[in-house]
Amino acid sequence: MTGSHDVFGVGSLTDVSGLRVGHHRRAGRGWLTGTTVVLAPGGAVAAVDVRGGGPGTRETDALDPRNLVDRIHGVCLTGGSAYGLAAADGVMAHLESRGLGVPVGPGRHDVVPVVPTAVIFDLGRGGSFTNRPDPSFGRRAARGARPEGALRGTVGAGTGARAGGLQGGVGMASARVDIGGRMVRVAALAVVNASGTLIDPSTGAPWTPVRRLRQPVRTERAALAAATAPADAVLNTTIGVIATDATIDRAEAGRLAQSAHDGLARAIRPAHSLLDGDVIFGLATGHEPLPTDRHGLVRAAESRVHALNAIYSLAADVFAAACTDAILTATGTSAHVAYRDLCPSAFRSIPVPTP
Amino acid sequence: MTGSHDVFGVGSLTDVSGLRVGHHRRAGRGWLTGTTVVLAPGGAVAAVDVRGGGPGTRETDALDPRNLVDRIHGVCLTGGSAYGLAAADGVMAHLESRGLGVPVGPGRHDVVPVVPTAVIFDLGRGGSFTNRPDPSFGRRAARGARPEGALRGTVGAGTGARAGGLQGGVGMASARVDIGGRMVRVAALAVVNASGTLIDPSTGAPWTPVRRLRQPVRTERAALAAATAPADAVLNTTIGVIATDATIDRAEAGRLAQSAHDGLARAIRPAHSLLDGDVIFGLATGHEPLPTDRHGLVRAAESRVHALNAIYSLAADVFAAACTDAILTATGTSAHVAYRDLCPSAFRSIPVPTP
Repeated sequence: MTGSHDVFGVGSLTDVSGLRVGHHRRAGRGWLTGTTVVLAPGGAVAAVDVRGGGPGTRETDALDPRNLVDRIHGVCLTGGSAYGLAAADGVMAHLESRGLGVPVGPGRHDVVPVVPTAVIFDLGRGGSFTNRPDPSFGRRAARGARPEGALRGTVGAGTGARAGGLQGGVGMASARVDIGGRMVRVAALAVVNASGTLIDPSTGAPWTPVRRLRQPVRTERAALAAATAPADAVLNTTIGVIATDATIDRAEAGRLAQSAHDGLARAIRPAHSLLDGDVIFGLATGHEPLPTDRHGLVRAAESRVHALNAIYSLAADVFAAACTDAILTATGTSAHVAYRDLCPSAFRSIPVPTP
Repeated sequence: MTGSHDVFGVGSLTDVSGLRVGHHRRAGRGWLTGTTVVLAPGGAVAAVDVRGGGPGTRETDALDPRNLVDRIHGVCLTGGSAYGLAAADGVMAHLESRGLGVPVGPGRHDVVPVVPTAVIFDLGRGGSFTNRPDPSFGRRAARGARPEGALRGTVGAGTGARAGGLQGGVGMASARVDIGGRMVRVAALAVVNASGTLIDPSTGAPWTPVRRLRQPVRTERAALAAATAPADAVLNTTIGVIATDATIDRAEAGRLAQSAHDGLARAIRPAHSLLDGDVIFGLATGHEPLPTDRHGLVRAAESRVHALNAIYSLAADVFAAACTDAILTATGTSAHVAYRDLCPSAFRSIPVPTP
């Protein structure tokens, strides 16, 4: 693996060519929530794996490989619990205005965009239970989506996120793997709002390794233990996207999403509880062809199975890194303290990136 | 968690009252395979979660909570790849002779036992591709099943197992959690035959922590690296049982099995590949009642959701410990070297248990 599975603050979902990321947030005056949109203007094969016990979703049934829609043009991740599903209306409007969607008539704009959406629970964290993302959040995040320079930390859907008592956020990571001489990219974006912790209480460091991050000093570990001790009694969720530029089909994208859940399980403990609505979308932009021989189990090197396994294995690592990235790049809010503020000594050897 | 999530060689699936474990193996003269049977003479609620890409199973559809069969009396885990599914015939015969199964007629023995079964790929590891478990393996393992003293290591279905180039095997672990003053037991049995590794190549120690196990000395780590370097090019599988004595329904047992896969993902890297047929059965013997209030998300302490989350979280830890237990208690065979033989220095502080 080349890339950033054990660093943070670098590597972006937009490293997968064909993807753009945009955020919109609102904080203050009773607000603390936002929306993150992933756009694929050229279309992407898409799938979903729902593993949490309390998911809030929209347009996930359309992704079943037995169903009609072959490619989608955008994914919406948002705060606001089930109310936040309205943000996808704004993403649809954005795509409709550009003629991106399932063609249903003769006109260029006669399309129905399919925008798979998942939500996190952040109701009331800004002070008002009724301040939630609406369609304008989705539209603004989509309008701001860029093919590079995507922000991370306390942005977009991660604005009101909480993880194990600390400020959650949006994290990303990216890596490449050599498939028969072609470098295939795998990247992830995670909105971490978990009931579990990403920090090992015995060390004060993340469960998954991060290069150059130090164990925080004793006084900071004590502060961390105090902040993270109470178990959250309400709904929580980690949602995200795992993406590749490889050419894979919908069922394969489904296993890509399933593999990313292994990374979630390694980075967040416990994971996938009944109080988590954990949902991961798998996207493939199809810029890099893979071997097509599906039966070469024994004559291994050039088989599709082995290419897919390499991608799936990397997907778990990259998604774990994206989850950890979120907690390390988050900045404190009115609702939650950030890891970097509680444990500054952990970053002594690292120039802290700006989110 | 009280118990053995970070030790090995202690804690048994039979710590869940109502369960028995038996093994049968054959090694030498071209053989290296076996069968492990878990019996629940009083019946158990059962479910399954299949997460690998190449599973070999029998009677898993009967476990769908929408389907008829409410309780089962035995699970069969066996070598022999899909051929080994025949071992379940012997388990059925054993249960039929005792009148244990779904009643289908007026006579005490008019029953059809449902024996969910999963296989590992170990064909040819003893020298002959055609030496596989048959019904006699299932019958003998079932006859030998005991409510305590179950063996672990290179026994039963783990006899021909391989994990990351090392000898695999059968591992177990067990722990308890306090649910409103009742101690609920969660225990696991894993047959580890993974394409991934259980040992971190950078340290020579397991991915999941084991108390008192030391980092092996440098020369042993080099030998380990040499033994585990080549990726397996054929099918592999981790199969197992996660069980509790709590009273849960079939859908809840399904999430119990799903949670155990998180433990598998932490102990084995990569996990759930297309070359793994990873299958976990969830069993509940129902000796310990749980709270019945399903809606107490906010008034948390006494709610069923929180009780289940505590059990699911423990299930991940216990299944991870069972996987690691398998690799640490395995003994070398004609086919594979064992971790304990390659890295004896890791065990300096531990009296090595007899398998």
